[in-house]
Amino acid sequence: MAGSSYGTAIRVTTFGESHGEAVGAILDGFPAGMELSEGDIQPYLDRRKPGRSHITTARSEADRVRILSGVFEGRTTGTPIMLLMENTSQRSSDYSNVAHTYRPGHADYTYDQKYGFRDYRGGGRSSGRETAGRVAAGAVCLKLLSEMGITVTAYTRSIGPVEISPACLTPEGLNPELRLRTMTGMPDEEADRKTVAFLEGCKEQKTSAGGVIECRISGVPAGIGEPVFDKLDAELAKAVMSIGAVKAVEIGDGCACAAKCGHEFNDAFRMGEDGSVRKTSNHAGGILGGISDGSDILVRASFKPTPSIFRPQETVTDEGQDTELTLAGRHDPVIVPRAVVVVEAMCALVLADALIRGVGARADRLIDFYRS
Amino acid sequence: MAGSSYGTAIRVTTFGESHGEAVGAILDGFPAGMELSEGDIQPYLDRRKPGRSHITTARSEADRVRILSGVFEGRTTGTPIMLLMENTSQRSSDYSNVAHTYRPGHADYTYDQKYGFRDYRGGGRSSGRETAGRVAAGAVCLKLLSEMGITVTAYTRSIGPVEISPACLTPEGLNPELRLRTMTGMPDEEADRKTVAFLEGCKEQKTSAGGVIECRISGVPAGIGEPVFDKLDAELAKAVMSIGAVKAVEIGDGCACAAKCGHEFNDAFRMGEDGSVRKTSNHAGGILGGISDGSDILVRASFKPTPSIFRPQETVTDEGQDTELTLAGRHDPVIVPRAVVVVEAMCALVLADALIRGVGARADRLIDFYRS
Amino acid sequence: MAGSSYGTAIRVTTFGESHGEAVGAILDGFPAGMELSEGDIQPYLDRRKPGRSHITTARSEADRVRILSGVFEGRTTGTPIMLLMENTSQRSSDYSNVAHTYRPGHADYTYDQKYGFRDYRGGGRSSGRETAGRVAAGAVCLKLLSEMGITVTAYTRSIGPVEISPACLTPEGLNPELRLRTMTGMPDEEADRKTVAFLEGCKEQKTSAGGVIECRISGVPAGIGEPVFDKLDAELAKAVMSIGAVKAVEIGDGCACAAKCGHEFNDAFRMGEDGSVRKTSNHAGGILGGISDGSDILVRASFKPTPSIFRPQETVTDEGQDTELTLAGRHDPVIVPRAVVVVEAMCALVLADALIRGVGARADRLIDFYRS
Amino acid sequence: MAGSSYGTAIRVTTFGESHGEAVGAILDGFPAGMELSEGDIQPYLDRRKPGRSHITTARSEADRVRILSGVFEGRTTGTPIMLLMENTSQRSSDYSNVAHTYRPGHADYTYDQKYGFRDYRGGGRSSGRETAGRVAAGAVCLKLLSEMGITVTAYTRSIGPVEISPACLTPEGLNPELRLRTMTGMPDEEADRKTVAFLEGCKEQKTSAGGVIECRISGVPAGIGEPVFDKLDAELAKAVMSIGAVKAVEIGDGCACAAKCGHEFNDAFRMGEDGSVRKTSNHAGGILGGISDGSDILVRASFKPTPSIFRPQETVTDEGQDTELTLAGRHDPVIVPRAVVVVEAMCALVLADALIRGVGARADRLIDFYRS
Repeated sequence: MAGSSYGTAIRVTTFGESHGEAVGAILDGFPAGMELSEGDIQPYLDRRKPGRSHITTARSEADRVRILSGVFEGRTTGTPIMLLMENTSQRSSDYSNVAHTYRPGHADYTYDQKYGFRDYRGGGRSSGRETAGRVAAGAVCLKLLSEMGITVTAYTRSIGPVEISPACLTPEGLNPELRLRTMTGMPDEEADRKTVAFLEGCKEQKTSAGGVIECRISGVPAGIGEPVFDKLDAELAKAVMSIGAVKAVEIGDGCACAAKCGHEFNDAFRMGEDGSVRKTSNHAGGILGGISDGSDILVRASFKPTPSIFRPQETVTDEGQDTELTLAGRHDPVIVPRAVVVVEAMCALVLADALIRGVGARADRLIDFYRS
Repeated sequence: MAGSSYGTAIRVTTFGESHGEAVGAILDGFPAGMELSEGDIQPYLDRRKPGRSHITTARSEADRVRILSGVFEGRTTGTPIMLLMENTSQRSSDYSNVAHTYRPGHADYTYDQKYGFRDYRGGGRSSGRETAGRVAAGAVCLKLLSEMGITVTAYTRSIGPVEISPACLTPEGLNPELRLRTMTGMPDEEADRKTVAFLEGCKEQKTSAGGVIECRISGVPAGIGEPVFDKLDAELAKAVMSIGAVKAVEIGDGCACAAKCGHEFNDAFRMGEDGSVRKTSNHAGGILGGISDGSDILVRASFKPTPSIFRPQETVTDEGQDTELTLAGRHDPVIVPRAVVVVEAMCALVLADALIRGVGARADRLIDFYRS
Repeated sequence: MAGSSYGTAIRVTTFGESHGEAVGAILDGFPAGMELSEGDIQPYLDRRKPGRSHITTARSEADRVRILSGVFEGRTTGTPIMLLMENTSQRSSDYSNVAHTYRPGHADYTYDQKYGFRDYRGGGRSSGRETAGRVAAGAVCLKLLSEMGITVTAYTRSIGPVEISPACLTPEGLNPELRLRTMTGMPDEEADRKTVAFLEGCKEQKTSAGGVIECRISGVPAGIGEPVFDKLDAELAKAVMSIGAVKAVEIGDGCACAAKCGHEFNDAFRMGEDGSVRKTSNHAGGILGGISDGSDILVRASFKPTPSIFRPQETVTDEGQDTELTLAGRHDPVIVPRAVVVVEAMCALVLADALIRGVGARADRLIDFYRS
Repeated sequence: MAGSSYGTAIRVTTFGESHGEAVGAILDGFPAGMELSEGDIQPYLDRRKPGRSHITTARSEADRVRILSGVFEGRTTGTPIMLLMENTSQRSSDYSNVAHTYRPGHADYTYDQKYGFRDYRGGGRSSGRETAGRVAAGAVCLKLLSEMGITVTAYTRSIGPVEISPACLTPEGLNPELRLRTMTGMPDEEADRKTVAFLEGCKEQKTSAGGVIECRISGVPAGIGEPVFDKLDAELAKAVMSIGAVKAVEIGDGCACAAKCGHEFNDAFRMGEDGSVRKTSNHAGGILGGISDGSDILVRASFKPTPSIFRPQETVTDEGQDTELTLAGRHDPVIVPRAVVVVEAMCALVLADALIRGVGARADRLIDFYRS
């Protein structure tokens, strides 16, 4: 059944396989009148693009985005925005040895079980390449959020055993520019260096690494999110967990909350000097009862190590025989640096959707809206 | 905007406030012909019910469920199943001191920001009482799953600093009956005793505790779940994160995956003696590429400590004044034991929905279905 | 699969069978802060209620609505509004002869084919009684629309061969009060008298009649409705066609458009004296390209004659035998008068949903909304 | 808000403007394993293509479809099928005179009211060109239906005053091949000739014509469709009304039902010689209570005359001035012949979706499905 769409007020639908003709996305329901061109989107795709350093895959894709609809005279029209990226580097021959053998940690076996067969070239639809469409659509939402004074900043928090310094995690200490310059996406040059050394070790040992990406969303007004099932944190959890290799999603203090006592975890309210309500701490990560409380929203995702490793692995064939598989080809020893912008994109889609959904929450404002 | 529904093929919609007339749920799209009576649902509600021990709230609700539609001559008819629980113990006077003061850690402030005012009696819609509707609807799904050979077993894994023994966590060591008998929902009597002592300390110190609930789902065939946005793990993340106090959701090894290397984390495939594909480990928690792989599905949720504590807390009023609040009334020092069945219910809703969504995945099976 | 809900921004879900415990609806996503009590809803239910005259069914239901959630201190809270009507007059014995025989023109056979069995008491879920939930939810929307200056006025246009005078159809000639007083729902006393005589003839001849209901919606601002699939006229068509006995839905001139030429059908635009855009005619029925144009919206529904007639009819049993069926019991010789308020309710649900969906259409207004 | 998608189990999303870079559709949730190539789709697009005769627009578009995703080794993979048609004939200069003037009968004014501005080139998104995406996606569904033994046959029933002979409307008399050969899409050569003469008169008089398209769907098993809001006839009404120029949708006898009595309209059931249930007539058009009854499903749509006519018309500018507009450019004097395949496509999308939705209706069949 249909499962390639996300969102209610605005809705993104992605399409495309790793080695098909193209990947991309349609973004439907996006508000009209915002200036938009390929130049607003391309920088985000470039952050996701493979082949930028020796710690990511050697595959080289131009990932050049074209806007095929929904923009007229440089502005969005309110109609579906079609974002297309043609695949230019399809070396299908690399994948011939996995056509009938299930790669451990990949979706080969489960796709075959669900659909009866699969596009085995580079993982087909289950490839990380699918996220190019998410990033393109997310970039459009990031621009809208930016015009509303909302910033979405994801960065690598850890890879394998290396974690960035706590000083770099605070709102004051976080240097967003730095994460764009380091190979790892870490906003901490020393941790970046250590990580690169660790990853070189992983490559030598023919293994791979996982890591943690954190996303800080600032400027969201209080009152955003729907109660009960479509809580803002529930939507963030779904959106971020839907990124290929994610195995855990945390909000605010996340898992650490379970061992705390109520008097340690509750965030007190105080009136700010500007007459607005503030919290004196933010263990909750900016969301109470599924609705934003005006503090920064903090989301954290744990990524498993890339399943493609170059050691021999035990597995089975699609005809039910035990076998051993040694992968060749182009694979990232760690997916995390390239996934940072994907986390940003998914958070942006969630927030943009939630902000539009929130507009009809009060009868008096709704009536005013149509009167003016 | 509408946000009180979950599910695509089957859809549950809950309603009701803590101190309103009733709480409940409608379950729409449920398959016809399954035997169902109140007796199938009540035991699950009884597990969620307040007032069962001195470590949960003293509020006493009968939580007697009535099926008002969708069942005829003892079987589901395929039409909406309406499940109603009238509220019988509404001591609204308990809440008069919070009508204009925001309780830290609660949704009072955020509801006011969203809606302009709120039902302040017991948290209104944001109360944990809303989950009674989820449990009732989940119980119906649990019966269907059971008839398909699928079991859903949640249990308390930790509360505060006390964790159950690792021996109780394995498929062989897990004693599902035990969790129904202990006060904490732990399938480990020693940990249960320690936890009760810890919670008594919390009550003395006028604070509260959080904890971790784990859910093991066995018997799910491989091939269930939709790729991309509606992945099975993404749906589980959303469904479980939508439970009031949850701040983190993990699948399989969860957060621990981030520090592992690929050769440690990948689960190898081997042919079983019965000719079926098996994995030799289950770090992935039963889901690969968003689709079930036939192993047990493992979901873990971290619950924050109950925000209602009896110490004075700094907060503000809805007129923008700093104030101090000391709560009175009936509150759980820990919500975790009562939330175990809520986690089961949410997992059951996700699985039942995913199983029905999966039926149309292959053209040949679809054609056969209508031919036979 | 779930099919008992309508709407996107706000969503109504109905439940209940003709002879079950209760019927009703949940309205989710409704804006907060609107004054609401049972007294706003009951008058609409009374218009739908059976037993008001000798030309409608003799069944007598109090149809007393209770609001079980979503309203606090007399105002909507933004959370699901649960509307319950208990069934008080269930004479199940009337239906024993149809338990295993398919009534022609009813859904008995098709429900059995879909679900394997059916609640045969009074048609179960397929009974017109299901519309009580629609009317209750629609009444809530009608109040919101009214506060926005929008009126929704449905009336009987024809029954069998009797049509109301064209003079009563124009915006100036239409007397909305009159339709509430006549037995037929016609805003034309002479046609009402003729219709009653015709229906008495139908009863004598043990047959039934159909008719046409028209709905005029005034005050809708231009620009409401989504393009392509969710056009305003497409949503109206779905919502009205989903009422049990409707076999045709027309917008504006409807079927008559097919025989006209472009120069006859196009509505010219002119500037009004107040500086607003007007159309000099309204063949289009207030919708162009699926979006409201500021003129009155005109919807027309053709209702088939009530299938329950008291003549012997050829049919089959659920065991595959030819048989003859003569119905007894309480049946309307015409459903149209009671369906007028159902058409109003469905149009109100569509309009309220479309108005809320429309709020996010422009980026600049969206940004302003959150700035102010 | 998002409104460019249709369907629940399978979902089509169209994109593209008349004079943008491309039009097309994504079809998500389509079952895996069906053989599919561009050759299955192109013939349907060719039926919709402009420029085939002197009674349709002179614009010449190749409308060459490319499948960019969702098909591997000649079979559908279960993942989104992306169907792209690049626009090759964009003579934007034709439309310069309507950039700031509202064409009567078009969506220019309403789009401006909704979005603040519009893509004025050829109607942008509101152009009939958008339906190319519907036809491409519908063609994929038509192939699936065909493999299930279901045929969907639409044809022109009337244009202006010319109606086809009643003999050509019966299941026996209907010649589906003929409609593909005539210029009008009528399965009646004499009516076709008369219509062409009538349309030549329209062109001389610088006006346009409307008409009626009927669609007969055969082979649908009894039991398809969801009760209440998502009735099969309600879905057909929405899907067909969402086609640009449609002003009325009828099922079976449609509007004519309103003047009939119950004993004339009810279809009797009889056992067929093959042991299946048959109806002795089909006034209901194959649907009872929103669910298919096994008879042919009959849908009828009334199309308004093409609003683009070459006479001077009164209208206003987007700056609020009265003006007169005389259109130039390429316009169909009648849209009906090209819309026949669009009606087929929309009916196919509805049926394919309903058939997949129907699979989970019975608990026993669902359980069997996963056991086998």
